Amino acid sequence: MAELKSNENIVFVGQKGTMSYVLAVVTQMNQGASEVLVKARGKAISRAVDVAEIVKNKFMTTANTDSIKISTEEISTDEGNPLKLSAIEIKIIK
Amino acid sequence: MAELKSNENIVFVGQKGTMSYVLAVVTQMNQGASEVLVKARGKAISRAVDVAEIVKNKFMTTANTDSIKISTEEISTDEGNPLKLSAIEIKIIK
Repeated sequence: MAELKSNENIVFVGQKGTMSYVLAVVTQMNQGASEVLVKARGKAISRAVDVAEIVKNKFMTTANTDSIKISTEEISTDEGNPLKLSAIEIKIIK
Repeated sequence: MAELKSNENIVFVGQKGTMSYVLAVVTQMNQGASEVLVKARGKAISRAVDVAEIVKNKFMTTANTDSIKISTEEISTDEGNPLKLSAIEIKIIK
């Protein structure tokens, strides 16, 4: 699927239920994506790990989640103050 | 430091403040450990990422945190029921 833009294969994990994001990853895989990047910041990082583990253990037992990067991102709070947040990127490869 | 047992270089991240664990990692490094494994389960995973990022960005800017593994562990609840929890291991190499 060379026509897919890279940002179509990213799932941003936030405050919704874990299974919403699991479904998003599985859907992208079923539509032809060979890899999906699961990204999260702050407290959602734990949920992103849950998403990757559920995809691997329940839906795609041959998938690989070995490529994991962590980083620090600086965002602005509602009051305009800078805030540093940890971030994670988990690459799920079919 | 070949005499160090491997489990002396592990920091388990739990519910305490992030800086407690940062201090534990930095202390182990200063006592001669060339690598420290930061481990966490469940909601503490986000805090483990914070610990690794703070160690790397504030205390040991040459440290490497590229070796990250995620897994699923099964534990027993207080009532004896099995519960699956995601886990993370971040290896910090001096």
